[in-house]
Amino acid sequence: MKSNETPSSLIMIFGATGDLAKRKLFPSLYHLYQKGRLGNNFAVIGTARRPWTHEELKENVKDSVLTSIGNCENIDEFVSHFYYQAHDVTNTESYIELKQLANQLDEQYSLNGNRIFYLAMAPEFFGTIAEHLQTDGLNDTSGFKRLVIEKPFGHDLESAKALNTQIRKAFNEEEIYRIDHYLGKAMVQNIEVIRFANALFEPLWNNRYISNIQITSSEILGVEERARYYEKSGALRDMVQNHMLQMVALLAMEPPIKLSTDEIRSEKVRVFRALRPIEGEHVKEYFVRGQYGAGQIDGQDVPAYRDELNVDPASNTETFVAGKLMIDNFRWAGVPFYIRTGKRMETKSTKIVIQFKDIPMNLYYNTEQQQQLAPNLLVIHIQPEEGITLHLNAKKSGQHMETTPVKLNFSNTSTHGINTPEAYEKLLDDCLRGDATNFAHWDEVALSWNFVDKISEVWESKEQTEFPNYASGTMGPKEADELLENDGYFWWPVSNLDIDNC
Amino acid sequence: MKSNETPSSLIMIFGATGDLAKRKLFPSLYHLYQKGRLGNNFAVIGTARRPWTHEELKENVKDSVLTSIGNCENIDEFVSHFYYQAHDVTNTESYIELKQLANQLDEQYSLNGNRIFYLAMAPEFFGTIAEHLQTDGLNDTSGFKRLVIEKPFGHDLESAKALNTQIRKAFNEEEIYRIDHYLGKAMVQNIEVIRFANALFEPLWNNRYISNIQITSSEILGVEERARYYEKSGALRDMVQNHMLQMVALLAMEPPIKLSTDEIRSEKVRVFRALRPIEGEHVKEYFVRGQYGAGQIDGQDVPAYRDELNVDPASNTETFVAGKLMIDNFRWAGVPFYIRTGKRMETKSTKIVIQFKDIPMNLYYNTEQQQQLAPNLLVIHIQPEEGITLHLNAKKSGQHMETTPVKLNFSNTSTHGINTPEAYEKLLDDCLRGDATNFAHWDEVALSWNFVDKISEVWESKEQTEFPNYASGTMGPKEADELLENDGYFWWPVSNLDIDNC
Repeated sequence: MKSNETPSSLIMIFGATGDLAKRKLFPSLYHLYQKGRLGNNFAVIGTARRPWTHEELKENVKDSVLTSIGNCENIDEFVSHFYYQAHDVTNTESYIELKQLANQLDEQYSLNGNRIFYLAMAPEFFGTIAEHLQTDGLNDTSGFKRLVIEKPFGHDLESAKALNTQIRKAFNEEEIYRIDHYLGKAMVQNIEVIRFANALFEPLWNNRYISNIQITSSEILGVEERARYYEKSGALRDMVQNHMLQMVALLAMEPPIKLSTDEIRSEKVRVFRALRPIEGEHVKEYFVRGQYGAGQIDGQDVPAYRDELNVDPASNTETFVAGKLMIDNFRWAGVPFYIRTGKRMETKSTKIVIQFKDIPMNLYYNTEQQQQLAPNLLVIHIQPEEGITLHLNAKKSGQHMETTPVKLNFSNTSTHGINTPEAYEKLLDDCLRGDATNFAHWDEVALSWNFVDKISEVWESKEQTEFPNYASGTMGPKEADELLENDGYFWWPVSNLDIDNC
Repeated sequence: MKSNETPSSLIMIFGATGDLAKRKLFPSLYHLYQKGRLGNNFAVIGTARRPWTHEELKENVKDSVLTSIGNCENIDEFVSHFYYQAHDVTNTESYIELKQLANQLDEQYSLNGNRIFYLAMAPEFFGTIAEHLQTDGLNDTSGFKRLVIEKPFGHDLESAKALNTQIRKAFNEEEIYRIDHYLGKAMVQNIEVIRFANALFEPLWNNRYISNIQITSSEILGVEERARYYEKSGALRDMVQNHMLQMVALLAMEPPIKLSTDEIRSEKVRVFRALRPIEGEHVKEYFVRGQYGAGQIDGQDVPAYRDELNVDPASNTETFVAGKLMIDNFRWAGVPFYIRTGKRMETKSTKIVIQFKDIPMNLYYNTEQQQQLAPNLLVIHIQPEEGITLHLNAKKSGQHMETTPVKLNFSNTSTHGINTPEAYEKLLDDCLRGDATNFAHWDEVALSWNFVDKISEVWESKEQTEFPNYASGTMGPKEADELLENDGYFWWPVSNLDIDNC
């Protein structure tokens, strides 16, 4: 299942001239190399349309590592493992040439026929490439073969199914690594450990003690240069279908029988199956959409979404989603999971707030001086901060029996040095070792599309007349606040929950 | 019950020339005065044998405040409320003079006949003074009257009963404030708040989730100048009968119906009644005694207890006690409360460690790389640090699913400024307001003597042949470690549990 040994492997990056390769994959591979996790028995083939030479790729890799890390130790040794081949993804001959290079490097570096195909490119080519890998013989290898693909995996359930069918002609489910880079984040991986390695939390992790859970993933940036994709996607498909639902699943799943890939995925799937479907008339009771208008961020004027480059001036695309998810099983009956995510918000922050129920009737401390005892909160800081905070009540220093909220802090960075590994580095390492735990299984993808599709259908059939409905630099439309207020809760302001580093 | 208004009052300090008055009472009163909690309607009469003048007392008070606080704001105004009268505690005429002064100040400061008698002196006079206060008419007042006494309250149950009978001729139980200065400490008072103001802890606060509780109160100092008293007392009577058992009671009590003096005391008494009595042959299974030998502390040689001034060279007095207490009720069945206290130990520290049970079979994280998952600990730091630390497990930063212990810290001092109020200041304020919650009720005193007497009897009847059995600068005799090892536990080393302030 999991192993600490990284087997030798040929890594083929489709889209090697692109942004993802440059910003994430090359630096991550270099980190792994520097840590000795890649060994010397590895080779990387970069492919793309452009007619680069090996040298040009090597220069590019070098440049990417220096830009991102500023370290050049062993850099020449590292880039000597890189090769480039210009490639046409629809052309069989092109694959046959690639195969020849692959076979040659396999022998040269003793790679035992192990191959990873990383599709760092536009999703419309995923199916085509996968099929060619099979038909043109690149999959015909004595070692393992693994396909790594980026989101989006389809645009809805139907297109995802079609894509899956196509891919599955060439790869088994176990060979497919669907990246959700949130699953590579240190503190998202920590959810499992917080829950299952601490005797303190598991007894409290249910509807008897937890009143609600809030997951916020807010960005300050607008749509930037991604408008063409984003116009068709929106926040629901871009963030909720994958990242947000994955975090819900990790928070809500039953303790798995063991911490194996299959058992964990199986528990996550059970959460998705227990998700109360929201459809038709009910969508507006559970979900709120938003689109940013002009506003101010850090004292700078920023434009409305509809005024951004490549955005339809009458666009109906949501740049903000807030939702209430109900998980209808014994553990979570009655406990709302609130999620919200959006662009051009007040702060860049991904945080999970677990709010515990009040003590019975606030028995003791609900005095006149003190209207309300603060509830206990467990805050998991995903980014940019990483850590855990527990909000408790203590006695105020001084004469009287007044309580005061106190924070118990653990900051991940302060404990283990400044550089927590990048999500991509972790995921690449997992993939090399054959650990698919932190990748999305098809069943998860299908169930989450199924959930999200019902909401998109309603939203697409009915134009939102009030867009834009939140100003840039705010935390979303007022309806997102009302969603919680109707249940007697409120969004804990994420920026006030930051870890106090003294 | 509790009130925030401090009524006007005459405070009579018996033993005003002594050490306690000088080091604790005068500075505490000054603090209260500076905070406006004493108002202007108060007067203090100091009494003792010495023939001081009012001026001499005032100078002494001033000096004590300056030495301890280094602040002289309003000091002359403050000391103008102080009066001195030389006094013979056995002489009726002396009390009659005192009464005249009291009546005069009562009128002068509009004190409504409220009187606090603080006996800051050797306990052998407690009974005599109380009786005289009654027979010579000082108790004959239109306001409240309260008697404040210091430990030790008796030497065993019998002497405590005799003393109580004597005192109760002059004061009702509600009028008697038996000081246990540990109950004035900020974090001891916080135990109640931690437990009952946090929805997180109460569900876990029982034998289903807690494996054991450890209370350590260690001193670096030896017997110092207190040998005459200490030789007769020993650690069991000096520390266990009062402070240690009080902390056990606060940790173990059931949630009271309300946070009133009577309800809290009643719950503490129920803990003492549920304490498993340890007697006869069983004492050696549950209790360990120790006496320090010579050793080194901070690189300095220090003498053995038997070589200290005024100590019998063959002394059998214990300077260290470790014990295992069992509370035989539904909540705590099977959960040992380990206590230890001693002089000349490695560190000065009072800490409570609540160790939670392991997760079932350490299901997930008991791998080869990692022998044992660290249990969750809640550490309450009483002194010299004040705060709470929660020890959890998190995922180690890096590639693999290894866990690492992390500490969530809350430091009391860092939140509310450097000066947390002195225990005596709190207790004086409580007494002025008539809040007896943080003082020991007779029932608590009687039950704790009853528990402790059975152990003393065995120890006194059977000389310890191996004294001294621990070197100065260590954490006590090895038998104290074995006490826990026999149950499969160990003392969490208190110095490693300190709050990490970054």
